[in-house]
Amino acid sequence: MRSIQLTAFGAEHLKLVDLPPPRPKPNEVLVRMEAASLNYRDQLLVSGNLYRAVSLPMVPISDGAGTVLEVGEAVTRFKPGDRVTTFYKSRWLAGAMRPEWEAAEIGGPAEGVMREMACFDAYSLAHAPSHMDSLQAATLPIAALTAWQALEQAHITTGQTVLLLGTGGVSLFALQFAKLRGAKVILLSSSHEKLARGKALGADIGINYRETPQWGAAVREATGGFGADAVIETAGASTFAQSLDAVRMHGFVAVVGFMGGIDAQIPLTQIILKRVHVQGISVASLEQHERMVAALEATRLQPVLDQVYGFEELPAAFEHMLAGRHFGKIGIDFAR
Amino acid sequence: MRSIQLTAFGAEHLKLVDLPPPRPKPNEVLVRMEAASLNYRDQLLVSGNLYRAVSLPMVPISDGAGTVLEVGEAVTRFKPGDRVTTFYKSRWLAGAMRPEWEAAEIGGPAEGVMREMACFDAYSLAHAPSHMDSLQAATLPIAALTAWQALEQAHITTGQTVLLLGTGGVSLFALQFAKLRGAKVILLSSSHEKLARGKALGADIGINYRETPQWGAAVREATGGFGADAVIETAGASTFAQSLDAVRMHGFVAVVGFMGGIDAQIPLTQIILKRVHVQGISVASLEQHERMVAALEATRLQPVLDQVYGFEELPAAFEHMLAGRHFGKIGIDFAR
Amino acid sequence: MRSIQLTAFGAEHLKLVDLPPPRPKPNEVLVRMEAASLNYRDQLLVSGNLYRAVSLPMVPISDGAGTVLEVGEAVTRFKPGDRVTTFYKSRWLAGAMRPEWEAAEIGGPAEGVMREMACFDAYSLAHAPSHMDSLQAATLPIAALTAWQALEQAHITTGQTVLLLGTGGVSLFALQFAKLRGAKVILLSSSHEKLARGKALGADIGINYRETPQWGAAVREATGGFGADAVIETAGASTFAQSLDAVRMHGFVAVVGFMGGIDAQIPLTQIILKRVHVQGISVASLEQHERMVAALEATRLQPVLDQVYGFEELPAAFEHMLAGRHFGKIGIDFAR
Amino acid sequence: MRSIQLTAFGAEHLKLVDLPPPRPKPNEVLVRMEAASLNYRDQLLVSGNLYRAVSLPMVPISDGAGTVLEVGEAVTRFKPGDRVTTFYKSRWLAGAMRPEWEAAEIGGPAEGVMREMACFDAYSLAHAPSHMDSLQAATLPIAALTAWQALEQAHITTGQTVLLLGTGGVSLFALQFAKLRGAKVILLSSSHEKLARGKALGADIGINYRETPQWGAAVREATGGFGADAVIETAGASTFAQSLDAVRMHGFVAVVGFMGGIDAQIPLTQIILKRVHVQGISVASLEQHERMVAALEATRLQPVLDQVYGFEELPAAFEHMLAGRHFGKIGIDFAR
Repeated sequence: MRSIQLTAFGAEHLKLVDLPPPRPKPNEVLVRMEAASLNYRDQLLVSGNLYRAVSLPMVPISDGAGTVLEVGEAVTRFKPGDRVTTFYKSRWLAGAMRPEWEAAEIGGPAEGVMREMACFDAYSLAHAPSHMDSLQAATLPIAALTAWQALEQAHITTGQTVLLLGTGGVSLFALQFAKLRGAKVILLSSSHEKLARGKALGADIGINYRETPQWGAAVREATGGFGADAVIETAGASTFAQSLDAVRMHGFVAVVGFMGGIDAQIPLTQIILKRVHVQGISVASLEQHERMVAALEATRLQPVLDQVYGFEELPAAFEHMLAGRHFGKIGIDFAR
Repeated sequence: MRSIQLTAFGAEHLKLVDLPPPRPKPNEVLVRMEAASLNYRDQLLVSGNLYRAVSLPMVPISDGAGTVLEVGEAVTRFKPGDRVTTFYKSRWLAGAMRPEWEAAEIGGPAEGVMREMACFDAYSLAHAPSHMDSLQAATLPIAALTAWQALEQAHITTGQTVLLLGTGGVSLFALQFAKLRGAKVILLSSSHEKLARGKALGADIGINYRETPQWGAAVREATGGFGADAVIETAGASTFAQSLDAVRMHGFVAVVGFMGGIDAQIPLTQIILKRVHVQGISVASLEQHERMVAALEATRLQPVLDQVYGFEELPAAFEHMLAGRHFGKIGIDFAR
Repeated sequence: MRSIQLTAFGAEHLKLVDLPPPRPKPNEVLVRMEAASLNYRDQLLVSGNLYRAVSLPMVPISDGAGTVLEVGEAVTRFKPGDRVTTFYKSRWLAGAMRPEWEAAEIGGPAEGVMREMACFDAYSLAHAPSHMDSLQAATLPIAALTAWQALEQAHITTGQTVLLLGTGGVSLFALQFAKLRGAKVILLSSSHEKLARGKALGADIGINYRETPQWGAAVREATGGFGADAVIETAGASTFAQSLDAVRMHGFVAVVGFMGGIDAQIPLTQIILKRVHVQGISVASLEQHERMVAALEATRLQPVLDQVYGFEELPAAFEHMLAGRHFGKIGIDFAR
Repeated sequence: MRSIQLTAFGAEHLKLVDLPPPRPKPNEVLVRMEAASLNYRDQLLVSGNLYRAVSLPMVPISDGAGTVLEVGEAVTRFKPGDRVTTFYKSRWLAGAMRPEWEAAEIGGPAEGVMREMACFDAYSLAHAPSHMDSLQAATLPIAALTAWQALEQAHITTGQTVLLLGTGGVSLFALQFAKLRGAKVILLSSSHEKLARGKALGADIGINYRETPQWGAAVREATGGFGADAVIETAGASTFAQSLDAVRMHGFVAVVGFMGGIDAQIPLTQIILKRVHVQGISVASLEQHERMVAALEATRLQPVLDQVYGFEELPAAFEHMLAGRHFGKIGIDFAR
């Protein structure tokens, strides 16, 4: 079967190879992989910039979706024909993540989804939402779950205000999830065109941070002086002080990304005097994933797909991501 | 100014009287009352069936709305012209309710809203949602807040399923609030016509409990075998066992009413083996009320008003409520 | 190896048999079983009174402890020589319990601990507290974890008051755990001797419910009129109304047992007006079990053992439990 | 009556003055003040270094205790002879703090406790623990409540590990409260003598941060590799990175002080990958204060008093605090 392997760090070392098809163990499910989607993490791993504790060669990419071909004898959760997605923290069933499970992360250290068939433990897969095709479902495991978990931990409810930084995959899922809860969304971007697209998706207010560098104050003004109930911090170091300025007393700042830099200069007095809850978030458990799937099905949410590439076009897909002009998720369609 | 007083228990003892207009203390707000709405509690008090520890004569009815005429010198929360609603547990600002505050409940033991002007402590009033007139706003203090609190304590989120018993004021607000969160609603009624009206409001599934007395099983079937995430128990004794049958493992049963009887025969094994959270709910604090108002404004929710009566038609309004054929809230318009 | 099997319902059908020693799979641990303890559940299963959906013959008894002999190749949690306890809900790692895992409950439907060697999945075992021998550790899986979970869900903290009904295994662990948190304990019993023993373990107040049948009022009086912060309801139907009378406004009633009957007559108005949280509890997840073990080790808690029987004296141990005169846990020492 | 007023910023402008005794309004309580204690905040205010939005002259110092002399006609919470403490955030009853209440903070902007008699709203006072004299009770309002709130928000329970930075008032109360819950305490100090005194109070492990600048790693080693469940961050900028290194996955960092600097350089990847909850804490509500008093009474906790000064020795007390050699709270005894 076709597979793509990373043979050395660097996108130029992504090789098309032929691997023997796998066979499921009693607790495993054999899946025909049909689609994948890219996350910033994939790029960090392939480039060798962050996660180097992996054994090469390996099959890259964490998020995938497909159809069940066969199940092991002990499996009751799935049956042939079921449509499924992978689950990045593949051992994290519920409760607290355990360090010993990090070795099982799909797409590095454990093998990723760029192969036509793969076996997974039955509790390392989730049902795909019934209204999504595999390309849509493949956008969910990391980006959608991170956004879902941020809103869950913030207890966002109807009438509250969520501030989103940028229009990457996590931000756009957070936008859609926040609107499903009846919350208000303030969206930040440096592009008027992206702000307009965000408003078409439901964002109530758009702020161009190039034009309004003191956007913390702008958010407070837009919320009657109170500040946002929650900020989904996808940028990190370059924005953290403004995020603390934007959030209300007793508010919530979800720290989910660090594209703007790793070390943030943080004014602790703001955290103390506003009694802010700053919460690190790195995806979530299968239990939360399954609750998210129920939400997606009940509301028939359509994920925002940007460009879609074919199986053998993975390097081009990475280039597109690095260019940073995408809006939503970049997909890989294995049928192309 | 016109007022209605209960001079002895029984609706026939509701008398139209002329009282001197009140003056606000430094921490108080003088309000021109413009509307009221009825709750089952009002009927229990006026009839003398439940709350007898009140001094007669007294002005009845807990829920009202109007316009600020004047504020005391220490008041900063309101200014003349602001539109407000009363707040039933008038001392309960936040956190836990304290028994010492029960004497201050508006509409008994403390004076109610059936008077053309009234003074309240600034923290015993809330802003009316800006898109509602006083008649609509007067429906909120007890029924809407009880429904809001039930969904909040149940942590109802997108994709979950809420089971509602009947079409009284609390149930219909719960229906609307649940839909705003992206939840699914199963509505129970003995009337096909009410079920149809509930579906027009957004209910996903209607069950006629006359035709399906084992509706617990029907709810489980409608939820893929799992059961409802939360049940808003407005009926009480006559339905509790079926509610426990309908709720999922680790589910939530909000006990908010007892129209079907006070002493319930409860199968404890269901509570234990399903690990059910049964939660008594009796309105909520001002802090929750203000969060609810933010939700109402953000979503421009329209409360469901049944019949509206004039100020002096209060006895007729009670008769209508006792007949039990209403759908939503019964209002009193002081301008009629 | 020696084992005891239940060949038909009824304690007279407990037979000593010789079974072949098991071999661990890659994810399993081979344990030399050294001790067990009895729970009321074991008696209901052996007698056939409650859990009949099991296949006979089966090895009975849910709670056991021993020493690791060998681990499968994929196991990193344990090594030979580690001392361990079993874990009743053997698949419930964390988060919500799933119905599909009930088939794996140790001691029925799955095989129990009355055998000299047994294999378990590595996540179906927990480390024994380092200061306990196997006989002590075997008391933990059901009774101690149930008590721990009740106090955790009630968020019992220093200075609060916990009301305990009786002196069974769950109550005595709850007594010890509550004292470790700096809480006050009110203990109920029909025996002055048991109350005295409870006070020796740390109970602050003892109430003889034979002499004080209106003990709800007595608890309120003993708490300055407020009521207990939490009640651990081990009795059920016969006591529930008094428990609701004893608990404070916004208080917590953990429903963990039903020795006094299954169907409780419950005054719903008490639940509503006091805003009581009634919580069904049936043991807990491995994550909670491990947190409990950390607590036991940090405080070197000594479980309360009543009578100890030898491996082949299981029927006598059941008789002792049925007589109801024990105080704490009944143990089985496999070395006798 | 004697009072001390700050007439201009700088401790040299603390003047002894004679003020007329106050009279209580209907909702107020007249208190004979008998003791006070110092907080770092008092020093920042008197020096003019932080809180300059106050009107001078004013009576300084936030924390005091005394005896009720007289109550207004509407007051039911207290009676003459009751022993009470002040409550710094005097309007914060429960739930979320509101910005509009900051003007009522005792000891600036509102008048402080350095006066022989003072009137307070009945809900701006709390009962003193019955086993404490006024000097002991005066240590509670800011330091003890901050420590209590940190442990409450961290949900610290038996068997968990709390890391404390230094031996100031908040740290020592946190030490005592953590031990009352059965938690383990790791204490950090630059002084072997202070570490020894901390161990005498119950600390399990002491680390000298001068000798072990990489104390984050030392804490992980001391906790079996896991890290502390909670860190009470009283230092701020100079320690934050090590605190994040010391805390476990899903752990809690309470940010309560900033003596080591205001702007912290924070590695966001640690927050994300460990899913840390960083929580700003600035005292708490009266509801939490009352729960703390119940805990203090139940356990007869003795606060740690360092030096005690007389009413007119306030400047000397400030000098002692600035020297930084104290261990526990600095008291002011009005009878001296």
